[in-house]
Amino acid sequence: MTDKLVITPWEIKGSVMGVDYEKLMKEFGADALNEQVLARMRKHTGQLHVLLRRKFFVSHRDLNWILDEFEKGNKFYIYTGRGPSGPMHLGHLLPFMLCKWLQDRFGAEMWIQMSDDEKFLVKPDMKLEDAQKWTEDNVLDIIALGFDPKKTHIFVDTKNAKTMYPQAVRVAKHLNLSTAKSVFGFTGETNVGIAFYTAMQSVLAFLPSALSGKQIPCLVPLGLDQDPHFRVCRDIMPKLGYHKPAVLHAKFLSGLGEGGKMSASLPNSAIYLIDSEKVVADKIKRHAFSGGQKTAEEQRKLGANPEIDVSYQWLQAFFEDDDERIKKIHEEYKSGKMLTSELKQILIDKVNAFLKNHQAEREKAKEKVDKFWWKD
Amino acid sequence: MTDKLVITPWEIKGSVMGVDYEKLMKEFGADALNEQVLARMRKHTGQLHVLLRRKFFVSHRDLNWILDEFEKGNKFYIYTGRGPSGPMHLGHLLPFMLCKWLQDRFGAEMWIQMSDDEKFLVKPDMKLEDAQKWTEDNVLDIIALGFDPKKTHIFVDTKNAKTMYPQAVRVAKHLNLSTAKSVFGFTGETNVGIAFYTAMQSVLAFLPSALSGKQIPCLVPLGLDQDPHFRVCRDIMPKLGYHKPAVLHAKFLSGLGEGGKMSASLPNSAIYLIDSEKVVADKIKRHAFSGGQKTAEEQRKLGANPEIDVSYQWLQAFFEDDDERIKKIHEEYKSGKMLTSELKQILIDKVNAFLKNHQAEREKAKEKVDKFWWKD
Repeated sequence: MTDKLVITPWEIKGSVMGVDYEKLMKEFGADALNEQVLARMRKHTGQLHVLLRRKFFVSHRDLNWILDEFEKGNKFYIYTGRGPSGPMHLGHLLPFMLCKWLQDRFGAEMWIQMSDDEKFLVKPDMKLEDAQKWTEDNVLDIIALGFDPKKTHIFVDTKNAKTMYPQAVRVAKHLNLSTAKSVFGFTGETNVGIAFYTAMQSVLAFLPSALSGKQIPCLVPLGLDQDPHFRVCRDIMPKLGYHKPAVLHAKFLSGLGEGGKMSASLPNSAIYLIDSEKVVADKIKRHAFSGGQKTAEEQRKLGANPEIDVSYQWLQAFFEDDDERIKKIHEEYKSGKMLTSELKQILIDKVNAFLKNHQAEREKAKEKVDKFWWKD
Repeated sequence: MTDKLVITPWEIKGSVMGVDYEKLMKEFGADALNEQVLARMRKHTGQLHVLLRRKFFVSHRDLNWILDEFEKGNKFYIYTGRGPSGPMHLGHLLPFMLCKWLQDRFGAEMWIQMSDDEKFLVKPDMKLEDAQKWTEDNVLDIIALGFDPKKTHIFVDTKNAKTMYPQAVRVAKHLNLSTAKSVFGFTGETNVGIAFYTAMQSVLAFLPSALSGKQIPCLVPLGLDQDPHFRVCRDIMPKLGYHKPAVLHAKFLSGLGEGGKMSASLPNSAIYLIDSEKVVADKIKRHAFSGGQKTAEEQRKLGANPEIDVSYQWLQAFFEDDDERIKKIHEEYKSGKMLTSELKQILIDKVNAFLKNHQAEREKAKEKVDKFWWKD
């Protein structure tokens, strides 16, 4: 049983495995992240990041333009964000990992928006103070990835409104309610803050250009669900005299359950960045949906289906960086040589190794965080 | 010929003389500013301000509550604002004059909003920089009235967004698009910035309470056209734990033309605060619609109609402070003893005396203005 997938910037509900990304791409009018454009990137970066090699980033808008400008000596900056409504899980972190790699390989500035206003406005029971508290928490996970404090600027919508609001009204003037309704599916029940919010999300797509008086290309790696904001943003930027931002679309890291279902009401479907080794092992053993057979015996005989197996999907997406090794895991698991428990143990070890390092860096981030906040 | 009156917070078009304020009051659900409540005020102020005595302020919401609280020792503050889209004329200044008097008589704090965002968002051809430039200009006219710099705080939406935006999102969460559309008549063409703006206008109706942690009563003197913002604001305040602001509604000072028509496209229908003596005399002589007869002879015989005479209306509303004198002018003009040219000369002298003083104070305001800006 897989549930119908519902994607809006504020909700991902249903099964994210087996999503027809080709179809989504066409609907969105985005281009596939094909071998040609990846080869262009590789010229500048050497080996591509695992999230690019494994096509976790699946499509783009105007990446060739970003590379054209880079090759002309006009460096791009990276912009992405986080809606701070709770603890971050592994899926939330992946786009930021690509950002960190892009910063290193291209020497790029990184501009980060923490949209506490958005989360407060969208979640009926959330207090603004809660969203602000989660902001303080979530930035530690982001900083833990190793961003360069000299080249990384974190904005919080309610704290940096002095800088952001006057720019947001410039965007808002070009977005009418009719367009907003058709892009985002707003209804009469939608509050006016949410309607305005997309203007706030557009600000960092041109602020460095506005502040410097130069056209600095902007590259936005993001989850596909955030694309509507940037479709609107890209339509408006030329009207304000700025280039459209380029976009890199990430797939969704599936939840642990069958079909990769994701929902805030299924806390066991995600591994949080603060989970202990024991919790990780327990969640994966008990909740990671398996494409294997009911018994070891049957598995040896019939083999497993890696395409619906969450543990395999997670290894493939990110956690097994070694291309040869992931190929071998695929073969052995599919043929029945590898059992589900063995596959799960590989993932448990990988995730725990990752989190051990992440949690240590998260502690160190507490000392560094003040260097990252944008000062209005 | 009188045009149909169109009143929204963003447009007053048509004839403002002969407006049925009784009817408007009922539609709005406001209370008449009757003798009873005026007598209560008089106990604290001595003689009432001419704008109250002559009923230029025509209705209110919860003024009795403001006086209850005041009598219990809980002082109110005053909040009003200005949309800075051009030079201020006499009509713009009147609500501020009552504010100044209220500040003096009740020792009240004065909080002023300059809504540069609103004007930028509403006027298709206006640049944000223009609205900011008019802000700098218009505050001089406001300060010239003699507000106490220790008790008066001027906010500019785009400059004080650090303070205002986080409070505005608290309001915005409680205002949905359906309500906003029905109150303001928004259409699909309305931009999302305008839809959000009413939340910005609500901020100063509770900010002093939010900052102090005490319930400080708020009194808002304003033009009737701004009432919709405060109907929304009053509905939402209790949901945020604040009292509803009280409101005092001003009529519109008529334009010079027939029926008091007002329109931005009729520059000669208003007297600007920077107009010279000669321009004032010229505008009143040439453009002030007269209720008199075609010739002096007819006037002596038939008398004039003060009710449709703009010069008389201006003297009655504000410029002739002396109650005995205005009564006499009414009699003499109506009976034909006073000619139109004589009446106009009275007004010209009054307006020019007022402006001479105002323009001198405006110059001095340039030295004082820095004391008034709110520091986030």
